[in-house]
Parts: sequence; structure tokens; C-alpha cells
Amino acid sequence: MPSRVRISDVASAAGVSIATVSASLNEVESARISADTRARVREVADRLGYVPNRLAQGLRAQRSSTIGFIGDRVATTPYAVGMVRGALEAARAADRVILLMNAEGDPELESRELATLLQHQVDGVLYATMYHRSVEVPSGLGATPVVLVDAESADPTVSSVVPDEISGATTAVGELLDHGHRRIGFINNTEPILAATGRLEGYTRTLERAGIGLDPTLIIAAPSIGPEGGYRAARQLLELPERPTGLFCFRDLMAMGVYQAASEAGLRIPQDLSVVGFDNMEFAAGLDPGLTTVALPHYEMGTWGVRELLGLIDSPSRKAKQVKLCGQLIRRRSVAPPPT
Amino acid sequence: MPSRVRISDVASAAGVSIATVSASLNEVESARISADTRARVREVADRLGYVPNRLAQGLRAQRSSTIGFIGDRVATTPYAVGMVRGALEAARAADRVILLMNAEGDPELESRELATLLQHQVDGVLYATMYHRSVEVPSGLGATPVVLVDAESADPTVSSVVPDEISGATTAVGELLDHGHRRIGFINNTEPILAATGRLEGYTRTLERAGIGLDPTLIIAAPSIGPEGGYRAARQLLELPERPTGLFCFRDLMAMGVYQAASEAGLRIPQDLSVVGFDNMEFAAGLDPGLTTVALPHYEMGTWGVRELLGLIDSPSRKAKQVKLCGQLIRRRSVAPPPT
Repeated sequence: MPSRVRISDVASAAGVSIATVSASLNEVESARISADTRARVREVADRLGYVPNRLAQGLRAQRSSTIGFIGDRVATTPYAVGMVRGALEAARAADRVILLMNAEGDPELESRELATLLQHQVDGVLYATMYHRSVEVPSGLGATPVVLVDAESADPTVSSVVPDEISGATTAVGELLDHGHRRIGFINNTEPILAATGRLEGYTRTLERAGIGLDPTLIIAAPSIGPEGGYRAARQLLELPERPTGLFCFRDLMAMGVYQAASEAGLRIPQDLSVVGFDNMEFAAGLDPGLTTVALPHYEMGTWGVRELLGLIDSPSRKAKQVKLCGQLIRRRSVAPPPT
Repeated sequence: MPSRVRISDVASAAGVSIATVSASLNEVESARISADTRARVREVADRLGYVPNRLAQGLRAQRSSTIGFIGDRVATTPYAVGMVRGALEAARAADRVILLMNAEGDPELESRELATLLQHQVDGVLYATMYHRSVEVPSGLGATPVVLVDAESADPTVSSVVPDEISGATTAVGELLDHGHRRIGFINNTEPILAATGRLEGYTRTLERAGIGLDPTLIIAAPSIGPEGGYRAARQLLELPERPTGLFCFRDLMAMGVYQAASEAGLRIPQDLSVVGFDNMEFAAGLDPGLTTVALPHYEMGTWGVRELLGLIDSPSRKAKQVKLCGQLIRRRSVAPPPT
């Protein structure tokens, strides 16, 4: 294996000092190096295939130009990969690279992984969760800048970006109201995460604002958040004496189970039952009929997180920000006026 | 912001030299340091919160302990994230970290990202593609060890791991044969990628081995590989004078469209039509009935890739390996004997 070309090889080939090579390639402005010399050094470096050593640069500058991205299972489940994409693109735009870690929801593993990130001298850390929830910033991070993504902290000095759950639910329920529905059910998640409590609040508020009294029998927290949970909850709702004509589901995967329950009950979507999901997963367009749903701002949270983190790295004393980003309604064919 | 604790801080607090601190914490065996001294140094380092600088270690050892993972869109689409998970777990087990890159299928971006990985002194690179296809190893990698994941090269000196497409298709078609089907359709991808040609070969061979003559009208390369493509292809197949009783689909997302076409044609799955997918995507269990499908060895390819790469980093002269890993049949409820 040929060994890597070193800066000293470039210096001798170009007949200049190592410092001149370094300054020429790094565009150090104050250095008094002629344009000719700069050009010659660059030409020699290119010809030899010299690659600057960012590890060495990082040590000198005490900046590694790397960012740690640690998630519970964010990077390795289909659901939230948009966050990773957003983070990668924002990092690339700023000439930073991302060290990726997955803690699998295991606190002990997480603290080991954070220690490894710090050993690798990351300039800052994005701490991301799969579902919007409240977290404590791991103490092991010390003074390293951190931004929470899809998670928030009770500590106002910590920057975070989360989806606006209330607005997301308002959008979903509003779509049903706009089509004339008055009896609207909500199939929620049982876990006390902010995604669930926020969407419940959005559902409740939106109905109240429309002058519709809350009927607790129309709200079901499903024990499982897969299609099976949606199926069971929908069975229960569709057997009510006065059944709902529209259903808002915590997740597209639950909406999928609603489709099955509706089909078994002989109800057509959307003629007999309207359905709105949440997540805009890959299969939502493929359901029959295509599922109207709310897309979470995963990509936008990833890019915002990286940009905020870079700001904190550059100005450690700057004030933390907590932002909420709105999701977007993706209209397909699962919503129609209620049957008359 | 408190500054990071340096190795010199540990040395003075423990009353030893920097070399002793380094040897104590790194478990250098040859160093003549007493167990007492080692213990004291470790205690002081822990108390001060000293984190070894892996950048500095990497420079000294000319090993960064980082691995680059560059994919087309692997890390940022729901489909193949199992690869990232496998790679992360294998890297963690070997105390390596992963620098993640996404080239978005853009060759120019890819070469810039590879240059960045080399600048960061990665010890090796995993080069991964979303779908099994043939690639050329980017020349920019030079002598850096590389392993292809879900991709293969015509160059026998390059290590690679791919799914065994022929065996995957054999498994899928075999499941239909075992239930008594004789007229089995195949909805394939039009792109000439190895995933498509390999599965076609597996389909053809398996039918031949069962003594069933190939009927080209039963093979459709769908112009779109989403539910819509599966839907259109199934419509066409189900209108044949002698329609197939079983369908093998290139992807679960296409099988989803088959469900819709079957429903519109008044055919029940599996009583009237059996369906086998490929991918085992998250929604496959939620289809009604649950979709029998072949799970690709994404996780296993990720772990194999990292282990092979670490082997090549340790022994650059070792012989390259090309392996194929089998997928696994996930039995659900979409296959039954054909109608009589």
C-alpha cells in the first residue's frame, strides 16, 4: 500500500517550507506569500495527491470540524431518517462531518457513546430522539455545546427543536372539520410523551374552538402503536351507537389498521369514514385510498439542529433557543364529507 | 465554558510524568509502572474528568479509529437503514466510530465527500448502495481500504457483501410452489440492477426445476416501483385469460398495489390470489392480510462490511472476499393453496 503523501513531500517538491505549504493551501490571509508561490504549491499538492490532514489541523485549531449525532434509534428506524438527512446536508454545507451514534435507548450505552464522541473531540453534539419527548441533557457532555432534536428539556439554557404537536393535530382535525365532520374520533398513543399529550391538546382545542363538546368515548389510547392497535381502537369506535364519521390517528401505521377495521365493518373510506394519519410514511400514498396525513418536519429539524449547534460552537455564550416547527398536511383521498 | 482537562493537569495532580499518565491509561504493557501508580493515575484522571484525546492518539498511531460510511441514500431512506444499524453495532463492538456521508447519487458530491473522509483520516471506507448493483470503486479512495455493501465490483481485489438475490427469489417462488401454485407471476423492476436480474434468474430457475415452462406473459417489469407500479402490473396480469394464482413482487411497496388491484377485481387474498413480497418493510405486517415476504440481510451486510473492513485495515495484503448473504422468508397470511 503506498503511504500517504505528507506535507513535507509537497514542501520539498515545491522547494518551499512546510509553513508556506500550509499557509498556501489554507488561504491564510496574513501570510506574505506571492500568488505565484500559492499557485505552484497547489499545483504540486494536486499532482502528488496530497490530502490535508484534518486530524492535525483539528488538534492545532482545537476544532475537529466534526459533530456528534447521537440518537436513541433515530438513525436506524425507517420513521425518522429525514432528521439524519437534514443534519447531513446542513453539516456538509458548513464543511463539517457527522460522527453517528445510536444508543438504542440504553442509558449506559449512551454514556459510553457520548464519552467516545468527546474522545474524538467533536465540536458539539446533536442529541435526537425518535419521538418528541422531554429529556435531561446527559451530564457526561460537560461544557460541549449540545442541541436537542425532536426532544426538549426543562432547562431553558438548552437549545432544542421539536415539532409543533398542537399545530399538527389542529391541522389534521381542521381538515376533518372543513369537510363537515362533527363526530371526530382520536386514536392516540398511551405513552405520556409530548407527541401524545400535544396532539391530544390540539385535538381538544380545535373541537372546542368549533363549538363541539368533547366526548371522551371518542378518544382511545391504543395499547399498541402498530396497525394492530389502530385496528382494535377503530373496532371499538365503529361499534359505538353513534359512531364517528372521521378519525384522526396518532400514526400512519395505526391508520393502516383503521382501514382494515373499516373494511371488515363494511365501511368505505372516505365515503363512509374519513381518516387522517400522522407521519407521512412511505406507504401512506400506497394505501387504498391514499392516506391524508401530517408530515413531521424531520428534515427541517435536522438542518435547524446543525445550524443552531454551529452557532453555539462559534459563540458559546449565545442565548439558547427553543423552537417548534410546523408539520405539513399532505392531502390524498381519505377525507370526504360525512355520509348524510 | 470550562476548558478541557489536559494530560498535563493529570500528571501534575498525580505527581508523575506525562508519559506515565499516558502509559497508565493506555495499558501499555511494556511500561514499567507499578500497579499502585496506575491505580493512582486512573483515580486522578477520573476525578478531574480527563478525557483522552483520540485525535492526538490517532495522529501518533496513524490510526484515527474512525470508519467512513458513504452511501447513495442508504442512511436517509427508510428502506435500508438496517445496514447502518449493523455497521454501527459492529463498529461499536470494535471501539471504532463511524463518519456518515450521503452522496445522494451525485458522483461529484460523492468525490467531494470521499475527499473529506480522507482528510479526516478514516482508516477505511464502507461504500454502500440502496439496491444491489454493480459499481466501480471511486478512484479518489487511493490505497484506503474499502468494502462494498449491497454493491459489487468487477474487480476481484475488492471485498463486497451483497444479498443472494437468486436464493431470495427461490425462497419466495418456492413458498408459492409448496402451496400448490403452478401459474406464478413475477412483477419485477425495469432497471437493469443486479437485484432485478438476480431475482428474475431465481424465479426462472425455480420454475424450471419444478418442471414448469416459462410463460413470458406472466413476467412484467413495472415502470414504477411504488404501489402504483404494482397496481398496474397486477391489473394486467389479473386480466389474462388464464390468470396467475400466485404473484411474486420485487418489493413490498409493489405488493401493496397488488392488494388494491386484487380488491378491485373482487379477488380475496389469499383465497383467490397468493402474494409474496420482498423487503419486509415496516408496513408489511399491517397489510390485510399480513404480507408474506423475504427480508433482506441489511443488518448482516452492515456488520459483515465493518468486520471485513477492520480485517483489511489490520492486514492490507489479505485477500479480498466477495460474499452473498441469504434473505429470510417471513411467513404471514398472504399465501394459501390456489383456488380449485
